[in-house]
Amino acid sequence: MKIDILSLFPEMFEGVLYSSMLKKAAEKGKVEYNVVNFRDYAEGKHKTVDDYPYGGGAGMVLKPQPVFDAVDEVKKNSSSRSPRVILMCPQGERYTQKKAEELAVEEHLIFICGHYEGYDERIREQLVTDEISIGDFVLTGGELGAMVVVDSIVRLLPDVLGNEASPVLDSFSSGLLEHPQYTRPAEFRGFKVPDILLSGNHRLVDEWRDKESLRRTWERRPDLLEQYSLTERQKSWVNEWEKERDS
Amino acid sequence: MKIDILSLFPEMFEGVLYSSMLKKAAEKGKVEYNVVNFRDYAEGKHKTVDDYPYGGGAGMVLKPQPVFDAVDEVKKNSSSRSPRVILMCPQGERYTQKKAEELAVEEHLIFICGHYEGYDERIREQLVTDEISIGDFVLTGGELGAMVVVDSIVRLLPDVLGNEASPVLDSFSSGLLEHPQYTRPAEFRGFKVPDILLSGNHRLVDEWRDKESLRRTWERRPDLLEQYSLTERQKSWVNEWEKERDS
Repeated sequence: MKIDILSLFPEMFEGVLYSSMLKKAAEKGKVEYNVVNFRDYAEGKHKTVDDYPYGGGAGMVLKPQPVFDAVDEVKKNSSSRSPRVILMCPQGERYTQKKAEELAVEEHLIFICGHYEGYDERIREQLVTDEISIGDFVLTGGELGAMVVVDSIVRLLPDVLGNEASPVLDSFSSGLLEHPQYTRPAEFRGFKVPDILLSGNHRLVDEWRDKESLRRTWERRPDLLEQYSLTERQKSWVNEWEKERDS
Repeated sequence: MKIDILSLFPEMFEGVLYSSMLKKAAEKGKVEYNVVNFRDYAEGKHKTVDDYPYGGGAGMVLKPQPVFDAVDEVKKNSSSRSPRVILMCPQGERYTQKKAEELAVEEHLIFICGHYEGYDERIREQLVTDEISIGDFVLTGGELGAMVVVDSIVRLLPDVLGNEASPVLDSFSSGLLEHPQYTRPAEFRGFKVPDILLSGNHRLVDEWRDKESLRRTWERRPDLLEQYSLTERQKSWVNEWEKERDS
């Protein structure tokens, strides 16, 4: 996979793209990153990338020219006939694991990251294939969002993750939140590991984990249960907890 | 504000904390960052931070000892009697702008970022005041989530943002998505700016923006409208669009 990132702050990406899993994936040849400062494509001696909004108002707006020209350039070297051009913005589609899986099969992704400024609407309408928001909170730029999306995608590429982190067992893949985990020591500062986990009885351990995974989801993210089909046994647990709560 | 970040990959943070707004905020003395590698607090000559889960299963679990000891240490130097200790994890509360506003009034925040591993449950139960997830997608570690949360908080601190980005006018603060923005040139590659924005009629421009802001929210994020009280005029617009859609 080829990933181009257009940003006015390319230095923000170094520590992230060249550490840990993202670095290893590049070293294995599974992904190639290229961070482009689109100010380099701005016309005029001042290399201006933004300008006042038509119709007045506070804030600046990213001009179409530097962004269109930078995207044209990275598309020239593309092996894909239709690279996805992704705009990071608060008005975009809310990012989910399903979208990560959809993007992970692409050959070439181009991310556009604004910073402080808004985007000229023609960028959205004519250049971009996907608008993505990572959540309902305000960030200074699209850079952190792009890093989040890149991380979530690259870890899904074949042969990127070793045994240290199996994507199948993660939260969200199963539809439920993960159960509590404990490791040694069995007692730390007076706080103990539940006896059942030390029992060596695998059937009881599995049942405890299933139940705690469901309990945590029921307590913290009941919205996830709406799309989940409960077994009869799980239904009886939920009934139990509902009774306890309401009594 | 003091921000401590506990991570096994401190190098990931450099480009982000020392660029752009986050850098300026530190230079102005509004915030102080400290990234701690909690491996430095691990006991034993191998400085092990994780271990196998009790009860078996794939994946490793972060041991309580290095995390508790690192948090103890950063609390020693705290000017706050009760610093918030924030765990970045998929099981956490979904992060929103409201939570950013809540955290922005604190004196001292401590972030704990796991990486690949799960957390020993005693960290959650005994050490942590807040568990935060930035969204329903799987990331390699808590680092990117912590950067997102830090960015969204620091920009809310008094005197951090200049005129370049007024927090009041952002998406989510008004409850609606932002209207389309345009800047020069009036025609770019054949694509034109709407005439009304060039008209100089401020009343019409404001009305167009209000309407487009509502339209975009109605099209893309109808969930936001559920918590929004529409004026009579806005209701009539929505009725119009609903008729068009259904015809």
